[in-house]
Amino acid sequence: MPTDTITMTPIGVVSSPRTDLSDDDWGSVESTIIITSPDLRDDALLGLDTFSHLDVVFYFNRVTADDIEHGARRPRGRQEWPLVGILAQRAKARPNRIGVSCCRLISVNGREIRVQGLDAINHTPVLDVKPCMREFQPIGDVTQPAWSHELMKDYY
Amino acid sequence: MPTDTITMTPIGVVSSPRTDLSDDDWGSVESTIIITSPDLRDDALLGLDTFSHLDVVFYFNRVTADDIEHGARRPRGRQEWPLVGILAQRAKARPNRIGVSCCRLISVNGREIRVQGLDAINHTPVLDVKPCMREFQPIGDVTQPAWSHELMKDYY
Repeated sequence: MPTDTITMTPIGVVSSPRTDLSDDDWGSVESTIIITSPDLRDDALLGLDTFSHLDVVFYFNRVTADDIEHGARRPRGRQEWPLVGILAQRAKARPNRIGVSCCRLISVNGREIRVQGLDAINHTPVLDVKPCMREFQPIGDVTQPAWSHELMKDYY
Repeated sequence: MPTDTITMTPIGVVSSPRTDLSDDDWGSVESTIIITSPDLRDDALLGLDTFSHLDVVFYFNRVTADDIEHGARRPRGRQEWPLVGILAQRAKARPNRIGVSCCRLISVNGREIRVQGLDAINHTPVLDVKPCMREFQPIGDVTQPAWSHELMKDYY
């Protein structure tokens, strides 16, 4: 049983015009991922600009340990939506506080990665950046409950 | 600059017939994610079975600190492919050793999640499970370099 603690160090940080924890309208937001890790060489980004999209793994650092949901709750607290387990939603108040999002790559300039549609606010620590590949997209039709479509209606 | 260390605890573990670090043919592999965290209640999985696919965040625990690539290398060491930065590939020997993969959900039984196509070997620590939603898929066409298509040819 893997109860060992794992330690991580951010490789970078998000610089974004979005500074609040509002939930919607991320699609047009342009932001910058700045690679700050002294352990990473500049060539760690070599060839990144040959991809159109990135998966960004980040840390919801504004969520406190007390905020974390360990069971189920209604998404966004909305009474018209069902009780849903924290592992069956993408809310930020989750165990380990890891966010994973896909965004469009605009440009790479040295250690600065310009992106569009990254749903992480200013100063968010970045744990990893990976290139999107079509082969890693879901295989077969993606189906999901109605509440999740309603929740995502204005997200991007 | 976010240099603070972040601590995580696995929420579960992968039980898989794949025990070796071979790279290909994951598509038909069926495995089980067992939620082992004593902090998570059973209802943390409530409603998970209303989704067809999951994003699984896991930890490449077999990669040692010395293995981690901090710059660029040829994917799989293949001379016919270009030098590519570690952030521009999805190799496991990466900073923070985080893997993110989409797989098909077969069933949920208590704290056991049965999946198909998860590219994580037996005993891999799981850091998070999230439902796949169509709205989180890449917006616009995904483009990528030729080497990445060649590398992924037999992956799933």
